[in-house]
Amino acid sequence: MKYWEDFEVGQEVVHGTHAITQEEIVRFAREFDPQPFHTDPVAATDGPFGGLIASGWHSAALYMGMFVRNVLLDSASLGSPGVEELRWLVPVRPGDVLTGRSRIVDAWPSERDPARGTIIGEHELVNQHGEVVMRMRARGFIARRPD
Amino acid sequence: MKYWEDFEVGQEVVHGTHAITQEEIVRFAREFDPQPFHTDPVAATDGPFGGLIASGWHSAALYMGMFVRNVLLDSASLGSPGVEELRWLVPVRPGDVLTGRSRIVDAWPSERDPARGTIIGEHELVNQHGEVVMRMRARGFIARRPD
Repeated sequence: MKYWEDFEVGQEVVHGTHAITQEEIVRFAREFDPQPFHTDPVAATDGPFGGLIASGWHSAALYMGMFVRNVLLDSASLGSPGVEELRWLVPVRPGDVLTGRSRIVDAWPSERDPARGTIIGEHELVNQHGEVVMRMRARGFIARRPD
Repeated sequence: MKYWEDFEVGQEVVHGTHAITQEEIVRFAREFDPQPFHTDPVAATDGPFGGLIASGWHSAALYMGMFVRNVLLDSASLGSPGVEELRWLVPVRPGDVLTGRSRIVDAWPSERDPARGTIIGEHELVNQHGEVVMRMRARGFIARRPD
């Protein structure tokens, strides 16, 4: 189990890889983001992206799944108060192979609660061409190592 | 169809209401955020939130569904480059009744592309107690009204 003390500024981790399918893109978007360029491969051809693309919220959720399975499930995670900045930089299309990676850019102990600390991670999702398709800077609360 | 010219700073809209169930929370989290306080009602009782709570990415996706159905499907949406700030302020628990609302806080025409403009929305998800559980400030690209 990793505690706040085990996360150090500069640490970089690659979390995993996911090949996204048209079926997944459409399924997520029908429930959570039913814009035609996310739900309808035919209509999307004439849309602003020239084809079907994944909802940005789908990309964020897929990234989170990788990060949780690779890092948070073995850490004393206490949740997150939020995200400083989230950027969708390049469209994600069916068949793209996405790799998640993160780097710790800041960390400090809580002033209010001696049992926890905050880490700031810069998180990226990269496609098979090496393009960063999504980037975000997020806060995480982690328990401090018990005495 | 609403174009960029139809969005004015100060406009406020309520998008809809959604009662979130334990089944939905667990289903989303198993795929995208499998931390025990999102996936396991029993383990969550002893966890940092004293019970099961929704993934913050689930809250964001549910909000997006409301916003798309109420606003974007009738608008000339060209997607979004990202979110300035996203805050999860209060845990979302099974049975919560969530209402989405937004306010336009800034808008400008594109300098690069005369066919589109940007709007900045402040978006909130509010629970049945009137607590703002999630707040974000997001950018949207909207096509300008054709001549």
